[in-house]
Amino acid sequence: MNEAAITLDGWYVLHDFRTMDWATWKAVPAEERKAATDEFITFLDKLQTADNEKTGSHAFYTIVGQKADFMLMTLRPTMDELQQLEAEFNKLAIADYTIPTYSYVSVVELSNYLAKESNEDPYQNPYVRGRLYPELPRSQYVCFYPMDKKREGDDNWYMLDMDRRRELMRSHGLIGRSYAGKVKQIISGSVGFDDYEWGVTLFSDDVLQFKKLVYEMRFDEVSARYGVFGSFYVGTILLGNERGSFFDVQ
Amino acid sequence: MNEAAITLDGWYVLHDFRTMDWATWKAVPAEERKAATDEFITFLDKLQTADNEKTGSHAFYTIVGQKADFMLMTLRPTMDELQQLEAEFNKLAIADYTIPTYSYVSVVELSNYLAKESNEDPYQNPYVRGRLYPELPRSQYVCFYPMDKKREGDDNWYMLDMDRRRELMRSHGLIGRSYAGKVKQIISGSVGFDDYEWGVTLFSDDVLQFKKLVYEMRFDEVSARYGVFGSFYVGTILLGNERGSFFDVQ
Amino acid sequence: MNEAAITLDGWYVLHDFRTMDWATWKAVPAEERKAATDEFITFLDKLQTADNEKTGSHAFYTIVGQKADFMLMTLRPTMDELQQLEAEFNKLAIADYTIPTYSYVSVVELSNYLAKESNEDPYQNPYVRGRLYPELPRSQYVCFYPMDKKREGDDNWYMLDMDRRRELMRSHGLIGRSYAGKVKQIISGSVGFDDYEWGVTLFSDDVLQFKKLVYEMRFDEVSARYGVFGSFYVGTILLGNERGSFFDVQ
Amino acid sequence: MNEAAITLDGWYVLHDFRTMDWATWKAVPAEERKAATDEFITFLDKLQTADNEKTGSHAFYTIVGQKADFMLMTLRPTMDELQQLEAEFNKLAIADYTIPTYSYVSVVELSNYLAKESNEDPYQNPYVRGRLYPELPRSQYVCFYPMDKKREGDDNWYMLDMDRRRELMRSHGLIGRSYAGKVKQIISGSVGFDDYEWGVTLFSDDVLQFKKLVYEMRFDEVSARYGVFGSFYVGTILLGNERGSFFDVQ
Amino acid sequence: MNEAAITLDGWYVLHDFRTMDWATWKAVPAEERKAATDEFITFLDKLQTADNEKTGSHAFYTIVGQKADFMLMTLRPTMDELQQLEAEFNKLAIADYTIPTYSYVSVVELSNYLAKESNEDPYQNPYVRGRLYPELPRSQYVCFYPMDKKREGDDNWYMLDMDRRRELMRSHGLIGRSYAGKVKQIISGSVGFDDYEWGVTLFSDDVLQFKKLVYEMRFDEVSARYGVFGSFYVGTILLGNERGSFFDVQ
Repeated sequence: MNEAAITLDGWYVLHDFRTMDWATWKAVPAEERKAATDEFITFLDKLQTADNEKTGSHAFYTIVGQKADFMLMTLRPTMDELQQLEAEFNKLAIADYTIPTYSYVSVVELSNYLAKESNEDPYQNPYVRGRLYPELPRSQYVCFYPMDKKREGDDNWYMLDMDRRRELMRSHGLIGRSYAGKVKQIISGSVGFDDYEWGVTLFSDDVLQFKKLVYEMRFDEVSARYGVFGSFYVGTILLGNERGSFFDVQ
Repeated sequence: MNEAAITLDGWYVLHDFRTMDWATWKAVPAEERKAATDEFITFLDKLQTADNEKTGSHAFYTIVGQKADFMLMTLRPTMDELQQLEAEFNKLAIADYTIPTYSYVSVVELSNYLAKESNEDPYQNPYVRGRLYPELPRSQYVCFYPMDKKREGDDNWYMLDMDRRRELMRSHGLIGRSYAGKVKQIISGSVGFDDYEWGVTLFSDDVLQFKKLVYEMRFDEVSARYGVFGSFYVGTILLGNERGSFFDVQ
Repeated sequence: MNEAAITLDGWYVLHDFRTMDWATWKAVPAEERKAATDEFITFLDKLQTADNEKTGSHAFYTIVGQKADFMLMTLRPTMDELQQLEAEFNKLAIADYTIPTYSYVSVVELSNYLAKESNEDPYQNPYVRGRLYPELPRSQYVCFYPMDKKREGDDNWYMLDMDRRRELMRSHGLIGRSYAGKVKQIISGSVGFDDYEWGVTLFSDDVLQFKKLVYEMRFDEVSARYGVFGSFYVGTILLGNERGSFFDVQ
Repeated sequence: MNEAAITLDGWYVLHDFRTMDWATWKAVPAEERKAATDEFITFLDKLQTADNEKTGSHAFYTIVGQKADFMLMTLRPTMDELQQLEAEFNKLAIADYTIPTYSYVSVVELSNYLAKESNEDPYQNPYVRGRLYPELPRSQYVCFYPMDKKREGDDNWYMLDMDRRRELMRSHGLIGRSYAGKVKQIISGSVGFDDYEWGVTLFSDDVLQFKKLVYEMRFDEVSARYGVFGSFYVGTILLGNERGSFFDVQ
Repeated sequence: MNEAAITLDGWYVLHDFRTMDWATWKAVPAEERKAATDEFITFLDKLQTADNEKTGSHAFYTIVGQKADFMLMTLRPTMDELQQLEAEFNKLAIADYTIPTYSYVSVVELSNYLAKESNEDPYQNPYVRGRLYPELPRSQYVCFYPMDKKREGDDNWYMLDMDRRRELMRSHGLIGRSYAGKVKQIISGSVGFDDYEWGVTLFSDDVLQFKKLVYEMRFDEVSARYGVFGSFYVGTILLGNERGSFFDVQ
């Protein structure tokens, strides 16, 4: 039996991608539209309160291209809270004018590949806590994609022994680290929760850094031989009044 | 000709995943919605009666993310009863506001890989009976996924001889057993019934155990080389009044 | 050039899978629903006449799970008659409340892998005729799936020479024969007609025999190395009054 | 750099597959339906004029099974004319009751694999012209499928040298030629135009010949090792009054 | 760690493919249709202004076949501007009668495989600038397809060392260059932005050159062994009055 990686697990994460049914939305009387928008902003403000109180975090972005009109990403200490927020969103008036296009269920994760040995409880380590229970930044751009490690013929990540995987992840991590300050990266594990094994969410104020980071990594053996990637979503932030004006029509 | 595994087969299983058409549902007059909800709860209560009388079992969970709003899982002694329950559900008023998103047809299964030789009729063994005709627990969380054993190039499960498969399954089973008390696992076979070869349904009061179990197994050769996985669904239980309040709007 | 298998070809076959749009159907006034159901039963009775006169055959089953609500399978001497029956069905009132979910076009087929050499015209042989122009049984259960023979790397059925294929098919056929009396099997070829190379339709009064048969075969090299399977459909028969009561609502 | 095949290119081809929305069509008042059908027949008659004048060609078939209700195949000297015919069709009244299910864009193609060396301009050769600018026959049956040549591991058609490809195509062509008089075959290239590399359209008065031809070819190395096939469509011709009566309801 | 390719990145690109909902559009009163068309043309004229001022570029083509009715391709210096143009389009009246069918998010890219070493800042080089910030031509035809470099078994582009990749790209580039004057090619990178790694947009006044170019390249090792292709779209230009008349009905 091969040695499994050990993970530290933080907040649960729901990425919820929606398209607007603009044609139907435009047909709604203006005051009804305004009420629905205001109700949604109140909901977003409530999410922000959790951010402020550090009992959770969220991000709200419009997605470029047809894959979605917006993404609402929420982090909470329990899966139950995610379910409740999802149910609450579905019962908002504005939800009736949205079409679900993709969602992803995961939990913020750190693996032991790069961990130093220690007698400390890592869950008490402030640096670790900051990564497991992250405050999502208000960067201008977001990038999300789910991924697997390959299990095909000679390219089978899960058949590699722990030392080889650790070595490979170290070199891979060096690339990530060289983008520190330019790209903030949240890795969330979804084995048993969703169709891929991980979700990757990147934040940056320079959208080109997403491309540079992911492309540079692709030449590294971890991605080159073992990476399997799902769809990529890229978007720009909706902050303050933009949260409402995005839904303005006419 | 390679030696086939022998199975013991118990109750037939239907997993039925549905999304609510919330926009249309909200437009239904409140008393009509109440009547439809009450009718559905009466249906669920009837299912519970079968659980109580041990003539079947069921589970009712809301699914997190867009894959479904709820999953109704029913177990019965015959395929015909599953068909009748499905037809009955489709004729409920609430069904008109649901959109089918996924279903799975299978039968609870035990394989002979881990069985001890015995002269007893296993169908008379109380332990075996408890597993073939299981009472589904009322755990807080559920996880469902379908899976195949791979048949690609050198990674062909069905070309391995019986001894090799038995040896591999033994090691795999050890992982499963180490989660005893934390995760209850129902394996149902679907060869000839549905698109994958097995459905796996996990129940736990700690949702993180699903991830730990599935991830640990992935490093074991049975999953690493031979596992092919479909979509993963994770959800939280709807019990008692929650079965109705889930459908409340406004 | 590799020696191709030779086939005997019988009746053309259309498998037509449909889901009911129950919500719309329920909204239809009761007498209109009754008229539409009666019209459909008259259509099914006409199909039965062909069965009686041995000018064709048909089967009508409800499918378990969301893949379809019912399957209508028709066999006729010409492709034109299948087309006409399909057009006729589409023009029935009840068709307006059905949603096509899958169909399969093929022709009943016997291959020469297992044939004995003979100077006789096989099309005059009563046993062969009974298999090429089969009377579909009124078994309680049906199972349908399409399949291909694999052409990938070293697992390429079509690159095997005739003797090897014949030897493999012989062993495979032995499994099939051991289910004689329990499962009736119709193989129909669809090369050039539909997306897979064959359709397999199984009939039995014991639904578990489908699983046993398909699972046992999967360990045989023909399936293990060379089988590629599409979706599996399983259903229960609708006979006599059930053909109408299936559509009853309220 | 490997030697590329050289092609001769003839008329551009659009295969347009549509399903009827029968439920909505039936709800249209009879005279409106008649007007829409007549308008469509006038459009088809105009297409026939191009056939008569040898400025193009077309075929109109009903497809068996749920993949489509009809296929309209048009050939013209320019891509622009195909685009105009498509736009014209979309603006017909009957188009509002059709649902697009598949289309294919290509150009009639002859490759140099089987060509004899010659100093003549092949575009002036009457035999070649007859194949590049074909008059589509009014055969009872049609078969269409798109295909690729495989590029996987050791089975990579595009890495074979010209001589090997020529040798393989010669043997493949012999099979095709043995069906002369029984099946008329149009090969159209779609590299750069659509998702597969070729479209194959077969015409015959004996539908079984499609299956025999495609199955026999499958044992030949060109198909066995290098063939990748898309969906197969089979249909029966709609000629004269059938073009209108196909749309008759009640 | 393998040496990654370095890219120069220019304008951001959105390819937006839409189908018209002709049936609904035809039901709109003529003057409303005219107003919606005029509003759209005003939007297109505004895009043209950016072309004129060289602050961006755009192309507007109708696509042949069912994949889309039109493609609007826009290039801008920032991702934010693309998002704003997309939002603006969605709020046009005509957008309500369009169905999104595909979109692609990327950025114009030049790689260093073919670059000469130089001390100059390439972003100041006029030739490089002309390629990074291209003025889209008004050619009669367009072709678009997304693509990946393969990472499968022995055919793994990202495991090749830099020298081998450079050598392969050089030979590949020679083919491209031989089409100079016949085909204009825009390569845009989408790693981290969309599902494939590159988008390729070709412009030509001779549609057959798309097929010749892509087919010739397919025999070159870069495509033959390492090319993975998505869907191909081909279309004809809509210029001046055609932009409006395309939407005329009756």
